[in-house]
Amino acid sequence: MILTVTLNTALDITYRVPALAPHTSHRVEEVVERPGGKGLNVARVLSALGHESVVTGFAGGPAGALLRRLLAPLPPHDALVPIAGTTRRTIAVVDGSTGDTTQLNEPGPVIAPEEWAALLDRYTALLASARAVALCGSLPPGLHVGAYAELIRRARAAEVPVLLDTSGEPLRRGVAARPDLVKPNAAELAQLTGGRDPLHAAHDARRRGAHAVIASLGPAGLLAVTPEGSWQAAPPAPAAGNPTGAGDSAVAALLAGLVEGLPWPRRLARAVALSTATVLAPAAGEYDRAAYERLLPLVDVSERAGPA
Amino acid sequence: MILTVTLNTALDITYRVPALAPHTSHRVEEVVERPGGKGLNVARVLSALGHESVVTGFAGGPAGALLRRLLAPLPPHDALVPIAGTTRRTIAVVDGSTGDTTQLNEPGPVIAPEEWAALLDRYTALLASARAVALCGSLPPGLHVGAYAELIRRARAAEVPVLLDTSGEPLRRGVAARPDLVKPNAAELAQLTGGRDPLHAAHDARRRGAHAVIASLGPAGLLAVTPEGSWQAAPPAPAAGNPTGAGDSAVAALLAGLVEGLPWPRRLARAVALSTATVLAPAAGEYDRAAYERLLPLVDVSERAGPA
Repeated sequence: MILTVTLNTALDITYRVPALAPHTSHRVEEVVERPGGKGLNVARVLSALGHESVVTGFAGGPAGALLRRLLAPLPPHDALVPIAGTTRRTIAVVDGSTGDTTQLNEPGPVIAPEEWAALLDRYTALLASARAVALCGSLPPGLHVGAYAELIRRARAAEVPVLLDTSGEPLRRGVAARPDLVKPNAAELAQLTGGRDPLHAAHDARRRGAHAVIASLGPAGLLAVTPEGSWQAAPPAPAAGNPTGAGDSAVAALLAGLVEGLPWPRRLARAVALSTATVLAPAAGEYDRAAYERLLPLVDVSERAGPA
Repeated sequence: MILTVTLNTALDITYRVPALAPHTSHRVEEVVERPGGKGLNVARVLSALGHESVVTGFAGGPAGALLRRLLAPLPPHDALVPIAGTTRRTIAVVDGSTGDTTQLNEPGPVIAPEEWAALLDRYTALLASARAVALCGSLPPGLHVGAYAELIRRARAAEVPVLLDTSGEPLRRGVAARPDLVKPNAAELAQLTGGRDPLHAAHDARRRGAHAVIASLGPAGLLAVTPEGSWQAAPPAPAAGNPTGAGDSAVAALLAGLVEGLPWPRRLARAVALSTATVLAPAAGEYDRAAYERLLPLVDVSERAGPA
């Protein structure tokens, strides 16, 4: 199985309103709730790709209970660790007149030291049967900024390939713990390295400890800098739609390609086709399967030289 | 005790954000949850005024369970009827830079016929020990538009004075069932009667069936048209602040004055002082007790002649 870790899971709520007008009152026309947080999204896409997936992380309070109830009928296996605090909600307010989304994200529960210890035990036990692990998203309050670095060290000790998808100081600390893959976007990569050029910055991130760096460049696709070489993979045309979850789909494709032992160009083609098909799907975080199959042979993967 | 009925209870959630910018992402700085719906607010103010209060209505699902858990330590007694559906949430997004509020209200659960029958049984049993009853707020989906009319007929059969605070067609049907009091605002009164002048419209509402009409005129206070006479009651100065809950405080004061057998001018002075003290309180739906005591002797209550 493939393990995903979401330390700051979320109950994702989508509200559709006719038109969002600040400082007025709105009757919500439609309410959709789903289990959320990046690692849960990755696990759902892995399941759709035919891989068994297990999710761990924290869940608690009424929102956590609802998240677990919504997760139960889905393919990913629930190995979340219960906490005394309450899982955060995120509210996406979709303006029906424009299709634009306004996002409100609660901060997340404070994690107690004994809850972190319980997560470490659960994680270490799960690593024994994991073929790969993804560490995804922000850290909730109360966790040490080096939390991901510790999870990376344990994965490496267990010889399980580990992908890190986070930002800011947790990314910086995580990279220093030498993960197999990091998947920053251009802004996160620039923040990590101080360099604005993605190719230079990706090489810099490798020097800082990441074995391979897959930078997402938005509609332009992915840039990969790995020990086996460097590539850029681009969709045949930029996709218009809802980019929510596109990065999570890319992570799922990269993990699936890793455990299937595919060469880098095929992994990257899959990741670009899948994230583009996610942008094209009407619901946030879902992907358009027909679009994925149509796009897959059309992704352009070209080798890149190292930076001058 | 005084009974309040809230058919569309709500879990009221307040989010504080630094500044609300539509179509961007926001980190919520503060999350406050409280049991909501007009009748619950009325009951809390009644308790603060020293009256025993009981709340009934519907609650269900995770939001309903949380509402009941938040209600449990408060003075109003919980006589809510469980339902299969989920109690709605309301989200008030407070913009920290301006203090303005953007409101998002979920539609509420669909009530099944057997759930309405259970509410009628509970309500009728509670009427036996009620000194007055208030019927408050909107109707959830699935309830007949004449639901309030039926509750009014049962209160009248039990000889319990009944106040109705709703709007639209449920108000129109309710008025025809001859409630003791209605408390529309100027817009609701105009919608009911077609007349823009509040004094004319209040007399019209009495002809349609309401024994007494207390119209709230916002910062200008209250207009009362009753079998005992007509009065206007105004605060010494218009109050600036958050008007959320001001109408519910007025309802609580009117009910308290009714069961205490106060003459109309004293009931109206209390209602105006209490709703003004609610506008002045920093938290929505709370009232400033010192302001209430200071304002009470300053409310101007003057008799009004009938319309020409």
